[in-house]
Amino acid sequence: MTGTMQQVVLRAHARGNPRAEDFALETVPVPRLAEGGVLLRTLWLSLDPLIRFAIDAVRLTGRAHVDVGDVLYGGTVSQVVESRHPGFNAGEFVEGRTGWREYAAVMPAEVPLRKLDPAVAPLSTALGALGMPGQTAHACMIGIGRVQAGETVVISAAAGAVGSLAGQIGKLLGARVIGIAGGSAKCAAVEALGFDACVDYRAADFRERLAAACRDGVHVYVDNVGGEVMLAVLPHLKYGARMPVCGFISYYGIGLEGPGPDRLPGFMRSIMSKGLEIRGFGGAMVGGQRALDELGAWVRSGRLRCPETIVHGLAAAPAAFASIFGANAHIGKLLVKVAEA
Amino acid sequence: MTGTMQQVVLRAHARGNPRAEDFALETVPVPRLAEGGVLLRTLWLSLDPLIRFAIDAVRLTGRAHVDVGDVLYGGTVSQVVESRHPGFNAGEFVEGRTGWREYAAVMPAEVPLRKLDPAVAPLSTALGALGMPGQTAHACMIGIGRVQAGETVVISAAAGAVGSLAGQIGKLLGARVIGIAGGSAKCAAVEALGFDACVDYRAADFRERLAAACRDGVHVYVDNVGGEVMLAVLPHLKYGARMPVCGFISYYGIGLEGPGPDRLPGFMRSIMSKGLEIRGFGGAMVGGQRALDELGAWVRSGRLRCPETIVHGLAAAPAAFASIFGANAHIGKLLVKVAEA
Repeated sequence: MTGTMQQVVLRAHARGNPRAEDFALETVPVPRLAEGGVLLRTLWLSLDPLIRFAIDAVRLTGRAHVDVGDVLYGGTVSQVVESRHPGFNAGEFVEGRTGWREYAAVMPAEVPLRKLDPAVAPLSTALGALGMPGQTAHACMIGIGRVQAGETVVISAAAGAVGSLAGQIGKLLGARVIGIAGGSAKCAAVEALGFDACVDYRAADFRERLAAACRDGVHVYVDNVGGEVMLAVLPHLKYGARMPVCGFISYYGIGLEGPGPDRLPGFMRSIMSKGLEIRGFGGAMVGGQRALDELGAWVRSGRLRCPETIVHGLAAAPAAFASIFGANAHIGKLLVKVAEA
Repeated sequence: MTGTMQQVVLRAHARGNPRAEDFALETVPVPRLAEGGVLLRTLWLSLDPLIRFAIDAVRLTGRAHVDVGDVLYGGTVSQVVESRHPGFNAGEFVEGRTGWREYAAVMPAEVPLRKLDPAVAPLSTALGALGMPGQTAHACMIGIGRVQAGETVVISAAAGAVGSLAGQIGKLLGARVIGIAGGSAKCAAVEALGFDACVDYRAADFRERLAAACRDGVHVYVDNVGGEVMLAVLPHLKYGARMPVCGFISYYGIGLEGPGPDRLPGFMRSIMSKGLEIRGFGGAMVGGQRALDELGAWVRSGRLRCPETIVHGLAAAPAAFASIFGANAHIGKLLVKVAEA
């Protein structure tokens, strides 16, 4: 196949929150296909907050690092256009980390590709409920959170890709589930998913509302945000509470140190005096196939809804990605629809 | 029994690190014994850093709180002088939380007392290796740390009551054990206990020495101190490292917030990007009888040494307690010998 395509590269490393101008849209030739490779046409692109880690000027963690001029990395759902690999046929659908581009030539031996059956679930769910966010939510509630019926669970970023699924899983497990989200519209959307309540962290009386919702103490706190929201939840945790940490978006632009005062002493005090069990984990496929199977059964039976916010066209990706880090109206998984199947 | 005795009361709530002047020695009548009670003569008093929590002006945690004029609480080994309880006889030895006083009249129905057999182990070990510090060290290495042979363990406050035992347990489990302590004398004492190395956090090249000792990464970090030492260890932790938190002495005088910068963002980043498993726990008898049995067998066989630093007389308790929070020469459990059996 010949012709040109669009891709998004990093123009400038992010300082603080990323801006659309930190990215550039380029037109380049469609890549050539080598023996043993597949040429993929991107249908869906996942805009994952974790990408923020990769675009700092200095590498603060061990994650993938993107240099200026590099194509942004990211999870996609694609269709095989051409195959020179015996395991893949043109027309098949796959999920993989192929980046912010309209076409990608990849070697399945190097880039893991997961085949998808569009008859089983909508293809986009491979980037949400039936992909990394779903597995993360599953781990938060089951593998790490060990949520039991009758327990109280608090979930920050409750309207987000992970939070919206985690809360629904909590309800399936018989827990009382309190969400925290920004703004009354998001809170209403979270409650519509079946959460028992959702507290608006932008409300002037946030702490009072949170205290009222957590009156009997919290067994599990799923932290996606860190910062003031996390510090507000800590006093409500019961002794021995579990705290899965799958994000800390309020700090993503800060690096290792923020302006004072130093809140670490109080956090250490809570860890010890409350006997907290904190467990961090990143975007790895934490739950394995068992989690995907369980999530798939819930989705097919209609018990787990897969909220999505969709923007259209690769050119819209930079601004949509930047919007993650400010006030936004996203509900569920944020996706770019790059092309029709 | 009649007569007078000495006890130590709180004169002023601590601000920052406690000072000897925050305590007062009082002479009072020996308490009267009620029906169902026992009169105990204190032989050994434990000076436990955790007492610091109880003498803040404001109650920051759920722990016991000591008001001005109250007798300080603390673990003791005592001998029964007089008994009006059918389960105790004069001459028996017990361990319990009877406070900083020469005699205590307690109701065993209200204050748990553990009987001790001086033929099995020296009585003072009931406050160290065969008491709460031993159980804490056991939990750090076995219950929570799950230390495996061949793993690398780092222990801060390695010369302290918990650290000195935890490191020895680590060696019994076949791990490589690196201590961190303040000053070359303490480090030498720690290495004499069998630690593979001990790094002096006061040395100008502390970070370089620590990096050299942790070259292959750290599987388990037992944190007793928080602060700069903890922040220096974090980069060396392996993905999925376990971090039992049984103290954070560098923050005890700080309350919830220290001067800036805010180190919480970097800590949250480590938790998530390194997939850390952090577990806090306080002075509860965490390991239960099983831990005490295992510790007892190690002590009796000579495989677990019980280092102690002993000061003499109740009047010495305030200054000795205050010295915990500054540079000191204590090795192992810090005890006050109040009286001979």
